Amino acid sequence: MKIADNRARHSTLAAICCRRTANSGRAAATQRERHEADARSQNANQKCTCAPATWSSTRIHRAPVTMPGIMAATTAVPLEETLVIVGVGLIGGSIAAAARRRGLARQIIGVGRNPERLEQARQAGFLDAVVTDPATAGPNAFIVFCTPVNHIAAAVERILPRLPAGAIITDAGSTKRRMCEALADWAGRDPTFLGSHPIAGSEKQGFEHADPELFAGRTCVITPLSGHRPADITRVRRFWAGLGMTVVSLSPAEHDQALASTSHVPHVVAAALADSLSESDRRLTGTGFASTTRIAAGDPDLWTAILCENAGPVADGLLRLQARLGDFERALRAGDVPALKSLLQTAKTKRDALDG
Amino acid sequence: MKIADNRARHSTLAAICCRRTANSGRAAATQRERHEADARSQNANQKCTCAPATWSSTRIHRAPVTMPGIMAATTAVPLEETLVIVGVGLIGGSIAAAARRRGLARQIIGVGRNPERLEQARQAGFLDAVVTDPATAGPNAFIVFCTPVNHIAAAVERILPRLPAGAIITDAGSTKRRMCEALADWAGRDPTFLGSHPIAGSEKQGFEHADPELFAGRTCVITPLSGHRPADITRVRRFWAGLGMTVVSLSPAEHDQALASTSHVPHVVAAALADSLSESDRRLTGTGFASTTRIAAGDPDLWTAILCENAGPVADGLLRLQARLGDFERALRAGDVPALKSLLQTAKTKRDALDG
Repeated sequence: MKIADNRARHSTLAAICCRRTANSGRAAATQRERHEADARSQNANQKCTCAPATWSSTRIHRAPVTMPGIMAATTAVPLEETLVIVGVGLIGGSIAAAARRRGLARQIIGVGRNPERLEQARQAGFLDAVVTDPATAGPNAFIVFCTPVNHIAAAVERILPRLPAGAIITDAGSTKRRMCEALADWAGRDPTFLGSHPIAGSEKQGFEHADPELFAGRTCVITPLSGHRPADITRVRRFWAGLGMTVVSLSPAEHDQALASTSHVPHVVAAALADSLSESDRRLTGTGFASTTRIAAGDPDLWTAILCENAGPVADGLLRLQARLGDFERALRAGDVPALKSLLQTAKTKRDALDG
Repeated sequence: MKIADNRARHSTLAAICCRRTANSGRAAATQRERHEADARSQNANQKCTCAPATWSSTRIHRAPVTMPGIMAATTAVPLEETLVIVGVGLIGGSIAAAARRRGLARQIIGVGRNPERLEQARQAGFLDAVVTDPATAGPNAFIVFCTPVNHIAAAVERILPRLPAGAIITDAGSTKRRMCEALADWAGRDPTFLGSHPIAGSEKQGFEHADPELFAGRTCVITPLSGHRPADITRVRRFWAGLGMTVVSLSPAEHDQALASTSHVPHVVAAALADSLSESDRRLTGTGFASTTRIAAGDPDLWTAILCENAGPVADGLLRLQARLGDFERALRAGDVPALKSLLQTAKTKRDALDG
């Protein structure tokens, strides 16, 4: 286990408030939850009077000096003692940055396969520490897998048996059915796994493009199974809500069916359009082409994995889309103006109903 | 003819420079062109010494007070005496605003079918005057049709016989072949028509969304025929270049073939994707879906006209795209990871080569 502690580098005083000490156990969890709810309803500047002996009421939480614009929130006791981000890229980095800004965790630990990149993320202030094995991150860890979606289930399966009680694993993967089926035996156990998909992202890669507001105002789907304990569902739900997200609960299959339409098929379409562009026509593209193909710049490895994990619903969606494009094609060849206009009007009405 | 002169409402002194008087004739055109070239190469603050008797060297050009951010340029004699915008919506309004900001025309006259909207555009500072018939706009008018593309050829055909020599008509329509074929007899005559397509736009409608920088840094295609006089080609080219555009010359058929790929097929695809969204899935869309379907919010009437004017190339493009989506679909159903990754990698490489 390698821990490079970043706390010594912190110098900006961001908040003085009630904190749970690092060595307190799971036994205080219920009291802690009450405490957190109380603390959030209080004025943050008032000194909390309900802290038990295992809580330090004078612990100083410092935000890192090197991360511009990311400061610990000053209004609430953190939801989590330790947030562990496995895979500190654009999504993992954004979760770390958002959690830091909102004060959701007392410490944020990064896990990754590239020690050099992890160390850069730590030095940039995203992480307090880095470890090579998430099972060593300490008690009650809230672990978020942000690795490519096709590697999550196997990695979680390896780690869960070695985690202490009180730990929970969730993820940020774009597909849910296969993963949740593979890990279904862990539903309702302690530690456990419960799937998540915060619907936010970018075609860019790397924590350098991380955005602490990436999740604000967006939707996160969580996919609890019937066996999951309500407290675990609440814990995962609260975390994403804490990042400013609207949390929606779906079955893993419902999630994958919907995301095929709203994300995976659009990605394929953007790629097919980008692919159709000849070099000589490049100068003849406008903002419409740029917008329609923007997501085609996404990482081909990541997207191959996502599409393969959800192959059936995506292939079915592509078949339906080909049929729809065939409707347009036939209307054009027939010069059927009313049919064309009706197709475009329906599309506009649906698009106008979307924000952004 | 109705002229509502806006000049009395101007109050901000924007430039004092050499101006051609409104009643000067076409005879001075050659000298005027030399003069303009000279003036552009001079320091704008120096008094011009080459003005003939028909030029006023003390005319004060005032920018309108009511148009925020749009001011006459102070660096050059205007390219055109009178710019006439037929159809003052988003594109027409943006051309007016851009021409105003860059000082491309001494006066800008609007033509439209809705007098109330035109008057609003005039009061907002886009126009100096409004007329109901572009043929009455005065000598040497530079007329830009920004009406729906399927109405341009017939309207131009009606107006050209009534225009004085020295006038020129171009347009901002998204298709060129049919229109340029219909007006081919006017190539090389005086007055004349020469097709243009400034590749810039927005899914929004109305001059309220006009943007004086809409064209800056973008490409404009002009589609001269073999009979066009070089001076007319230069005049149209200079106008678009004056708005900050890179001007490219293509045959009308080449233009339509290319724009089918870069604009018209993407529009249909965005519409088909937007149409596929169920109401319950709306909350599960992210920025990717929003970006890929953005242009589907465009005006269905305008886009029906564009697609019908270019029906053959668009239908062929849709057929090719269906085949490409079929490639993705088959690779997904077969679990062919290398094929999928290769398709996505090619698309990413092409998309990365685009700006924006």
